[in-house]
Amino acid sequence: MNFPAIITDKKMKRALSDEQIADFVRGAADGSVPDYQLAALLMAIRLNGMDARETTTLTLEMAKSGDMLHPDVGGIPVDKHSTGGVGDTTTLVLVPLCAACGAKIAKMSGRGLGHTGGTVDKMESIGMKTDLPEEDFLRQIREIGCAVTGQSAELAPADKTLYALRDTTSTVDSLPLIASSIMSKKLASGAQGIVLDVKVGSGAIMPTYEGSLELARAMVEIGTRAGRHVSALLTGMDEPLGSHVGNRLEVKEAIDILRGESAGPLLTVSLRLGAQLLIASGIADTPEAGEALLEKALADGSGLEKLRQMIAAQGGDASVCDHPEVLAEAPVVRDVAAPCAGYIAHMDTAKLGYASQELGAGRKRKTDAIDPRVGFIMRCRVGDHLAAGAPLCTVYAAKEADFEKAQAMILDAITLSDTPAEKEKLLYALVTAEGVKTL
Amino acid sequence: MNFPAIITDKKMKRALSDEQIADFVRGAADGSVPDYQLAALLMAIRLNGMDARETTTLTLEMAKSGDMLHPDVGGIPVDKHSTGGVGDTTTLVLVPLCAACGAKIAKMSGRGLGHTGGTVDKMESIGMKTDLPEEDFLRQIREIGCAVTGQSAELAPADKTLYALRDTTSTVDSLPLIASSIMSKKLASGAQGIVLDVKVGSGAIMPTYEGSLELARAMVEIGTRAGRHVSALLTGMDEPLGSHVGNRLEVKEAIDILRGESAGPLLTVSLRLGAQLLIASGIADTPEAGEALLEKALADGSGLEKLRQMIAAQGGDASVCDHPEVLAEAPVVRDVAAPCAGYIAHMDTAKLGYASQELGAGRKRKTDAIDPRVGFIMRCRVGDHLAAGAPLCTVYAAKEADFEKAQAMILDAITLSDTPAEKEKLLYALVTAEGVKTL
Repeated sequence: MNFPAIITDKKMKRALSDEQIADFVRGAADGSVPDYQLAALLMAIRLNGMDARETTTLTLEMAKSGDMLHPDVGGIPVDKHSTGGVGDTTTLVLVPLCAACGAKIAKMSGRGLGHTGGTVDKMESIGMKTDLPEEDFLRQIREIGCAVTGQSAELAPADKTLYALRDTTSTVDSLPLIASSIMSKKLASGAQGIVLDVKVGSGAIMPTYEGSLELARAMVEIGTRAGRHVSALLTGMDEPLGSHVGNRLEVKEAIDILRGESAGPLLTVSLRLGAQLLIASGIADTPEAGEALLEKALADGSGLEKLRQMIAAQGGDASVCDHPEVLAEAPVVRDVAAPCAGYIAHMDTAKLGYASQELGAGRKRKTDAIDPRVGFIMRCRVGDHLAAGAPLCTVYAAKEADFEKAQAMILDAITLSDTPAEKEKLLYALVTAEGVKTL
Repeated sequence: MNFPAIITDKKMKRALSDEQIADFVRGAADGSVPDYQLAALLMAIRLNGMDARETTTLTLEMAKSGDMLHPDVGGIPVDKHSTGGVGDTTTLVLVPLCAACGAKIAKMSGRGLGHTGGTVDKMESIGMKTDLPEEDFLRQIREIGCAVTGQSAELAPADKTLYALRDTTSTVDSLPLIASSIMSKKLASGAQGIVLDVKVGSGAIMPTYEGSLELARAMVEIGTRAGRHVSALLTGMDEPLGSHVGNRLEVKEAIDILRGESAGPLLTVSLRLGAQLLIASGIADTPEAGEALLEKALADGSGLEKLRQMIAAQGGDASVCDHPEVLAEAPVVRDVAAPCAGYIAHMDTAKLGYASQELGAGRKRKTDAIDPRVGFIMRCRVGDHLAAGAPLCTVYAAKEADFEKAQAMILDAITLSDTPAEKEKLLYALVTAEGVKTL
């Protein structure tokens, strides 16, 4: 293999052959190609793109770079993936609800990346184990209907190498790299039903609607070609989805919702995604029927009971389901006040994510530790009117200086206006093998 | 320093600030930024470019990343640099000739890069030392007028890191990276006169005339601003310059020329460049006067004697000057025959360079060893007519399989035509602080 020649082809904007892509993936998986050559090719791909054939080949080669599972979960294994957002805790809401409706959810989750949070970090913040041995993972799904674990090193090992490199080389925001990273893991894990939550907006990996739609279509096409049932929802990320941002705080919001004590956009999106999971599981025929089942599991408390079971099964303290207030404790708890009266006109959601990272809820380097306590609770949404001095959000910080830094970043991220502002769009479109349906 | 933010700016095609460029150079020089992040930025620079201000800042920061010398060589220290070609051995021809005319040549050379050869590799192929301690290097110049050494690790250490990375990440062909790499070393080495050989054509680092001219002007401008006497010749690289390609083979051709037994384009270009060096040294007033002095040193054997002295001073076996035929020995020596009769219409010179690399005369990875014996001797030039079966070139290979591979690559690189073809252009232009003169 002449790796520099592969880099050269992509640098010159030529399509790579299937063989070249296989060489690239093999080199990433077995470590035979040095990181700096992989990084150069990743940047060339980021800047010069890949066509549909290249992207599909890349995904399939990455899936085949490790084990290909056929999990015995006592039903149709389904999984859901979000392209990542801020205050985006749908997993902890919809997984218990879907399991309560009889779905078999074999979910593999990631850690926080850049300004976005990660389910694995949130689960660990309440003491849950996220490195389940395959046997335990499958048994738990057979027994209680759901399990959420970190990505196994045996699945799509090429992705593990490339994902870590992309994070530190500013090559995350590339359609072919995102699509292949997400779909290779899902294909390898043996998920037969795959539901994708593709974010749109200032906190999304692809900031424009067109970019997000293209990404969603690419992933649905790849999965469908591989014989899986795939659908993608395009949902808004022009402000945090839930009001809570930070690891324990986000777990708290999910519990509040399952307890029937909270609602809003996080619940709305969770129900839409959950309904797609029930369709992929053969439990519901239409989104409406799926949502009705989930609403019932929410109302009768069976969703909360599933979360309790899952936390206990994965070694966490399930009593937080009964006392979620213990999840909102930090050394410094202080409000950020609106500097003047006005309407919330805009939130730079990525900046809000970085404020949460600055507090210690996310990592700047792979090796950074996360502080489970810190984050913030938004007290407003875009379109709301606030009086001068009214709380914009409540910050949970480890120390006063962290609060000060986060406060400055949050104020910088939020734009107030004299004139009324429209609410942000939440639901954009549903993409399936049949096509795109605008919502 | 937030290095991913620097990569992001260049990825988004924004100009880097002087401070960001300084951070980049410092990170490369002291090893504090990992190779994979440097590689990603190099590719972003290759694809998105740098403006004149960024390129000048990059050059000066790289020069300042290590020692800045003021060498005592008993005269005006001058140096010459080629942007790299195939069969491009002008250094070994013009350095002895200029020294014989009284110039003080303090030359720092590089290793082979991509498809192009490197003087250091050629010198090592006949046992010469190329890691001269500074003191020995300067004394040698004072004593015999010339010395050629590898780049000192103390000079522009940032370039050392970046040069090695560029070679293996297909980021060689970038104007700002080439200009800063070349000029930072020359500025740091204290050369007061700098002559640049900027190649044009299919084997050149910048394949178009316009690109090469832009590069030449950028380097002349940077050097002139730094108070040095700089001139650049634009010369043809649409076929190998000399007929010999490979390390010992190229040394042989240089010796053949200095012995008066060979001539051709390699000698022509060496004389033109050498004349510029004599002008920079204050020895000649015009190119014509400079060439006349060099012709004399060629005819009277004083050039050959200087090469003998230089080889001996640097620990090599100077007897090769008297028996150059020992430099053309390899386990497999076989001709590549013309597959049909015709005129040589075109040579893809880069492909010929890669054939030489494939034989083992160049490196695919930084750590690859070079086989000094291998390469090929071209038996034709563009415009020549050959009978079917006549030798196109003679290959020197380590084993039969290597010959087969190289033969296929060489045949692929050479285009035969039924109709007469024009010879390739050799001399394009001279660029000085005064402007561009077409040749």
